[in-house]
Amino acid sequence: MSLTINLHVAATPRLCSRRQETGGAKLKNVRLGAIYHANPLSSLARRTEMLGHGRNAARASIRSSLIDPDGGVLVDLVVQEKDRALKAKEAEGLPRVGLTRIDLEWVHVISEGWASPLKGFMREEQYLQSLHFNCLRMGDGSVVNMSLPIVLAIDDGTKDAIGSSRNVGLVGPDGDLVAVLRSIEIYKHNKEERIARTWGTTAPGLPYVEEAITPAGNWLIGGDLEVLKPIKYNDGLDHYRLSPKQLRQEFDQRQADAVFAFQLRNPVHNGHALLMNDTRRRLLEMGFKNPILLLHPLGGYTKADDVPLNVRMEQHSKVLEDGVLDPETTVVSIFPSPMHYAGPTEVQWHAKARINAGANFYIVGRDPAGMGHPTEKRDLYDPDHGKKVLSMALGLEKLNILPFRVAAYDMVEKKMAFFDPSRAKDFLFISGTKMRTYARTGENPPDGFMCPGGWEVLVKYYESLQTEETKQQATVLSI
Amino acid sequence: MSLTINLHVAATPRLCSRRQETGGAKLKNVRLGAIYHANPLSSLARRTEMLGHGRNAARASIRSSLIDPDGGVLVDLVVQEKDRALKAKEAEGLPRVGLTRIDLEWVHVISEGWASPLKGFMREEQYLQSLHFNCLRMGDGSVVNMSLPIVLAIDDGTKDAIGSSRNVGLVGPDGDLVAVLRSIEIYKHNKEERIARTWGTTAPGLPYVEEAITPAGNWLIGGDLEVLKPIKYNDGLDHYRLSPKQLRQEFDQRQADAVFAFQLRNPVHNGHALLMNDTRRRLLEMGFKNPILLLHPLGGYTKADDVPLNVRMEQHSKVLEDGVLDPETTVVSIFPSPMHYAGPTEVQWHAKARINAGANFYIVGRDPAGMGHPTEKRDLYDPDHGKKVLSMALGLEKLNILPFRVAAYDMVEKKMAFFDPSRAKDFLFISGTKMRTYARTGENPPDGFMCPGGWEVLVKYYESLQTEETKQQATVLSI
Repeated sequence: MSLTINLHVAATPRLCSRRQETGGAKLKNVRLGAIYHANPLSSLARRTEMLGHGRNAARASIRSSLIDPDGGVLVDLVVQEKDRALKAKEAEGLPRVGLTRIDLEWVHVISEGWASPLKGFMREEQYLQSLHFNCLRMGDGSVVNMSLPIVLAIDDGTKDAIGSSRNVGLVGPDGDLVAVLRSIEIYKHNKEERIARTWGTTAPGLPYVEEAITPAGNWLIGGDLEVLKPIKYNDGLDHYRLSPKQLRQEFDQRQADAVFAFQLRNPVHNGHALLMNDTRRRLLEMGFKNPILLLHPLGGYTKADDVPLNVRMEQHSKVLEDGVLDPETTVVSIFPSPMHYAGPTEVQWHAKARINAGANFYIVGRDPAGMGHPTEKRDLYDPDHGKKVLSMALGLEKLNILPFRVAAYDMVEKKMAFFDPSRAKDFLFISGTKMRTYARTGENPPDGFMCPGGWEVLVKYYESLQTEETKQQATVLSI
Repeated sequence: MSLTINLHVAATPRLCSRRQETGGAKLKNVRLGAIYHANPLSSLARRTEMLGHGRNAARASIRSSLIDPDGGVLVDLVVQEKDRALKAKEAEGLPRVGLTRIDLEWVHVISEGWASPLKGFMREEQYLQSLHFNCLRMGDGSVVNMSLPIVLAIDDGTKDAIGSSRNVGLVGPDGDLVAVLRSIEIYKHNKEERIARTWGTTAPGLPYVEEAITPAGNWLIGGDLEVLKPIKYNDGLDHYRLSPKQLRQEFDQRQADAVFAFQLRNPVHNGHALLMNDTRRRLLEMGFKNPILLLHPLGGYTKADDVPLNVRMEQHSKVLEDGVLDPETTVVSIFPSPMHYAGPTEVQWHAKARINAGANFYIVGRDPAGMGHPTEKRDLYDPDHGKKVLSMALGLEKLNILPFRVAAYDMVEKKMAFFDPSRAKDFLFISGTKMRTYARTGENPPDGFMCPGGWEVLVKYYESLQTEETKQQATVLSI
């Protein structure tokens, strides 16, 4: 996919105090064809099927105006079909490194270019830059954001088995050879330092740390990744997993002149919807003709008490079906990254990855990627730090950050609305915990909090949880 | 001081894989006057006295070729003498913030421009950039390195007492009003996060943390600093405390065409001297005519078992007197910063501050600013990470990093020499601990390890320590 024009970054008004790239003045000199509106699609599956045609159509007629991917070229590390058999055969002969489920999610992320310009698991030079500067310096001296260390850990035994081999095969949790890692470098995995610099705490109980770092080996292995075939999960949701390349094709096909991304790991309530619709309104006011929303739930590892991906995807579908969000101007897709819950450090990753998928606007709210402190009664991060750090982040200058206003339930208007401090007592803040309590107890939230179809999905999920718990308790009692 | 030409940065061969600034080609077009060699000076005190004359002479005849300070202009926050009385009177009427001895060292550091372009204690925006990116972004979009948060903590009571005042007076540990902090901003001091992101650990026992952070308040106060008069310590060493401005004047006066800085907090042995002399040799080979060494011991807070500043300064004097280093091409001065022992994060600060003093080459060794892990039997940092991180650091691109070769005692040649792995058994590594043990027990180190005059200073110091200990023990016994 060739990106020949970087139209709108500088042509748009500044939404926050950031430097803007130059060159956007070209907008006035480029005649876009008539704006093409995709037909409303009730299911993303159908949209995905259409991409094959759309791609060629787009190539033939549209010069893409999407934001450049980091490093200038979108990384794609999936081996071409014609080479697959040969590469697989080669991989068979290599020393093997076993992947956990989370490791496999990272293979997926890297292979599709979400982490462009990263071409594999980090070598030590990249790891140190990520830890200390949340950035990588490119060969030409430019800097791209890279706030999370994307690394692969191995234990002593695996390191010994690799010996002096330059390449290794990566084996998925199901035993399949999924990739080759080339020109490897093995270096120490100082877990304490990695955790402290990534999370700003070493308190026990950080979900990703307990799941993926504490049990991992004391070495990291970096190298160039080649993935033998696209990563699939066969969970009925793969059609939602559009790669950055596919998303760019979709945006091109829709002739998007702005793409605004909304990262989430929770059900969509009407406050979110208000915010997304309001963002679109603001972009239209700014002169964009066809801003497209990328509603982009995170699909990798999440902590046990988050709502599972399949439930969330069903809930999101209802939100579009119920017309709370407009399918014509919304693309729903899964972001395959695992979740770190690393607050201001992680929100940079969430934003950076969306640049690679073509988004030039990123919506950020209160306490992004945050959670409660694992051992103290407080938020782990200052709820304002996420948007502050994101707005100042090195290597994200080309992205427009849209900090969002707080929405709450307006008890007078009986709907979700932007919080008005002058009549604070009219507003009800419904936290995630509160929402889950409603759903769990079967109590309805106030009218207008969430569309009925979406709410029903949640209620069913929590009912099933309780049934499951009751069964387990019954089993325990009967033992 | 006007810096009109930035001569040598790009004109020099590259010593490590870094981007170089352009513009150095001008070197060939500029005719420097005859190289002026300062007369050998046996004491830096005399040299400092001469600076007044030298400064004017330099201004009249020399266009400085020193590296630009960060941000382009060297910060100088000391109130001019004529305004002093008025400012002091104003300060009398302001709410007061008490400074610890370490806080006062930071006031000193900031006021003289070591932290240029920083003009006071960090506000939250600067603090967050420092924590997350080890850098500050300037108004023009350029980036300067700033790896340590330079902050001032206050407690709840002080915060309450400040109320809504926009400015505060800063009171030194002796009760003197030393400075005003203007347009203040008070924000939360999340100690855990600050420690984790700065040190990469939160293990108990980090010296600076125990001394300066744990006992400090839960708020940070940032603002613009105005120091009422130059900070002095009246410890007989103030004449060694040249400001960046004075150092630049000294380098200009000597017509230095390269300045290479050596940061240290330990006595100088002949291995260090070998390294510094070898660096000068390499710079001469590279075509520089008059490279000047800045021997720059750290003079602020150090941990209890480091050799105290006055002893080190006496030892350094002997090293110059004994001719191990050449006084003609060496400037000895004190770097007033306190020590963090924060390894790869701190070494960036050490290097950055020396840019502001005019150094364009920085020597870095094994495990800079490192120490043992406070609770585990290992180095706190990977000994190679300091030089790796420094070589890749954002905002330090204009500084040439000179990683150093390991020197050890060559038992065949009976002198300190660069370690030759092909005859490893001939070499004796004398650690700081080993050196202290020699001095403490009155045993002489091998001939050629350190000049006799310098060694004598250390032996006397450790003898005095033991006398002190014996006295204390005697006191305890007699009680």
